[in-house]
Amino acid sequence: MAKRLIPTLNRVLVEKIVPPTKTPAGILLPEKSTKLNSGKVVAVGPGSYDKAGNVIPVGVKEGDNVLLPEYGGTQVFLGDKEYHLFRDEDILGTLHD
Amino acid sequence: MAKRLIPTLNRVLVEKIVPPTKTPAGILLPEKSTKLNSGKVVAVGPGSYDKAGNVIPVGVKEGDNVLLPEYGGTQVFLGDKEYHLFRDEDILGTLHD
Amino acid sequence: MAKRLIPTLNRVLVEKIVPPTKTPAGILLPEKSTKLNSGKVVAVGPGSYDKAGNVIPVGVKEGDNVLLPEYGGTQVFLGDKEYHLFRDEDILGTLHD
Amino acid sequence: MAKRLIPTLNRVLVEKIVPPTKTPAGILLPEKSTKLNSGKVVAVGPGSYDKAGNVIPVGVKEGDNVLLPEYGGTQVFLGDKEYHLFRDEDILGTLHD
Amino acid sequence: MAKRLIPTLNRVLVEKIVPPTKTPAGILLPEKSTKLNSGKVVAVGPGSYDKAGNVIPVGVKEGDNVLLPEYGGTQVFLGDKEYHLFRDEDILGTLHD
Amino acid sequence: MAKRLIPTLNRVLVEKIVPPTKTPAGILLPEKSTKLNSGKVVAVGPGSYDKAGNVIPVGVKEGDNVLLPEYGGTQVFLGDKEYHLFRDEDILGTLHD
Amino acid sequence: MAKRLIPTLNRVLVEKIVPPTKTPAGILLPEKSTKLNSGKVVAVGPGSYDKAGNVIPVGVKEGDNVLLPEYGGTQVFLGDKEYHLFRDEDILGTLHD
Repeated sequence: MAKRLIPTLNRVLVEKIVPPTKTPAGILLPEKSTKLNSGKVVAVGPGSYDKAGNVIPVGVKEGDNVLLPEYGGTQVFLGDKEYHLFRDEDILGTLHD
Repeated sequence: MAKRLIPTLNRVLVEKIVPPTKTPAGILLPEKSTKLNSGKVVAVGPGSYDKAGNVIPVGVKEGDNVLLPEYGGTQVFLGDKEYHLFRDEDILGTLHD
Repeated sequence: MAKRLIPTLNRVLVEKIVPPTKTPAGILLPEKSTKLNSGKVVAVGPGSYDKAGNVIPVGVKEGDNVLLPEYGGTQVFLGDKEYHLFRDEDILGTLHD
Repeated sequence: MAKRLIPTLNRVLVEKIVPPTKTPAGILLPEKSTKLNSGKVVAVGPGSYDKAGNVIPVGVKEGDNVLLPEYGGTQVFLGDKEYHLFRDEDILGTLHD
Repeated sequence: MAKRLIPTLNRVLVEKIVPPTKTPAGILLPEKSTKLNSGKVVAVGPGSYDKAGNVIPVGVKEGDNVLLPEYGGTQVFLGDKEYHLFRDEDILGTLHD
Repeated sequence: MAKRLIPTLNRVLVEKIVPPTKTPAGILLPEKSTKLNSGKVVAVGPGSYDKAGNVIPVGVKEGDNVLLPEYGGTQVFLGDKEYHLFRDEDILGTLHD
Repeated sequence: MAKRLIPTLNRVLVEKIVPPTKTPAGILLPEKSTKLNSGKVVAVGPGSYDKAGNVIPVGVKEGDNVLLPEYGGTQVFLGDKEYHLFRDEDILGTLHD
């Protein structure tokens, strides 16, 4: 019953990462370490149009780990899994190890 | 008495899909599985104009299954059937099996 | 005393169609069947200017049956007949049998 | 002491026409027949600039009978005669017999 | 101590004309004759930029008698004389005998 | 400890001139003579971008005496000296003797 | 566990500098000397798009000392270190000794 979503324009489908609130050893992490609001890009749209009618490609790609704004995004359920849709320009950055 | 509507500009005429709240066996589905707000595209406009005066074609086509925003859209009755009109850019994505 | 109005820019002069609330046999129609807010185009302006200074022609033409938004439009009396002026982009679509 | 005004940009100087509320025979006219808010164009500006720096000429000309919006316009007294200044794009249309 | 001001962009420095409230013979003028809000252009800026980066020259020139909006403009004192700065596009028109 | 600031885009760093409220002989000046809100330009940014991607240079230069708006500007301390940052387009004009 | 962030578009990652409130000798500094709201640029995005679809590079670079607005910016934690994200155009200027 799970459907696949191809976003329109510069929309980006993201699966949020729930940050751990404890270390593997069970020690509670301080709140600020757990506040990182990040997610994994699951699908991206074809891009939006600039004023001259050309397509501006989306700045992130499938598989990217992204930093998300604290508010915003549209909650979407596909099957029974929760995702969020963001506009390309609202994604704050990409995260790398 | 049912009339056919050809939308203007980048408007898209959508017939909403009422999600099942029970399985075929009669088991109630959890609320989040039923929240998918989707519809089928019935008709699309010719597209809107960019700032250079060129037409930007509509990004979805007749027959597409689309994911709709929770709010917005204009309720329209043709004959006694209910439809909704959305602007092309307000449609969140297309759904595929 | 009835004057003829030539709209400016992308304005469209529309005579609204009052939908019947009964069938010819006198049976009251359910409210939703009577909610279709449509009209007939009586006159259209020459079009508006895009940012490059070119004229964008109006998307509907005299005689078209149009679907109108529930709100908006400017009430105009010519002689003692009531009309409404709409901006081209506010007309939702054209209706066809 | 009456001065002549040359409007700037796309401004249009209009002398409003007070509609008769009685017929020549003295019969009171119904209110809706008297609501036509029209005027005569007395002077027009040279036009406004589009984004490419070109002048867009004003869409009405001296002597035109114009349909005016119910609200808006700037009241101006030249000598002791009352006029109104409208932006070109706020004039609803031209009236013809 | 009086300094000279060269306005920036499309700003216009205006000395307002206080309209007489009596005739030379001492007869009080009706209020509407005295409401003409006009001034004399003292200095103009070099013009503002359009979207293509070109300068749009100011539409009025030093010495012009101009019709001013009832509200707006920035009060400026040079020496002990009062002036007002207006944006070019807020000046309603030029006055001629 | 005093640092030098190079403003970004079309920002202008201004040191405000506190107008004298007395003449050199100690006579109090009337309030309107003291209201001139002026300053000296200390540093200017490289300019902002127009819609075509070209730089629009800042309209004032280091050393200019400028007329400032009554409100606005960002208070900045460099060392223990107070300055204000204004956007180029908010500066009302340049003052000359 | 500390991740590296590459900002999107014209975003700039800044580590704020906490100004000293005492001199090295322990003397309390006056409040205005301590109000300088500055930071060090840690990472910059690739730039934003102008209306013609070209990239406008970010005006500051890694390592720059920047003057920040009193409000605004998005708080971000990477590992347990606090950073702020600013849009390029909100950074007031660069600071130099």
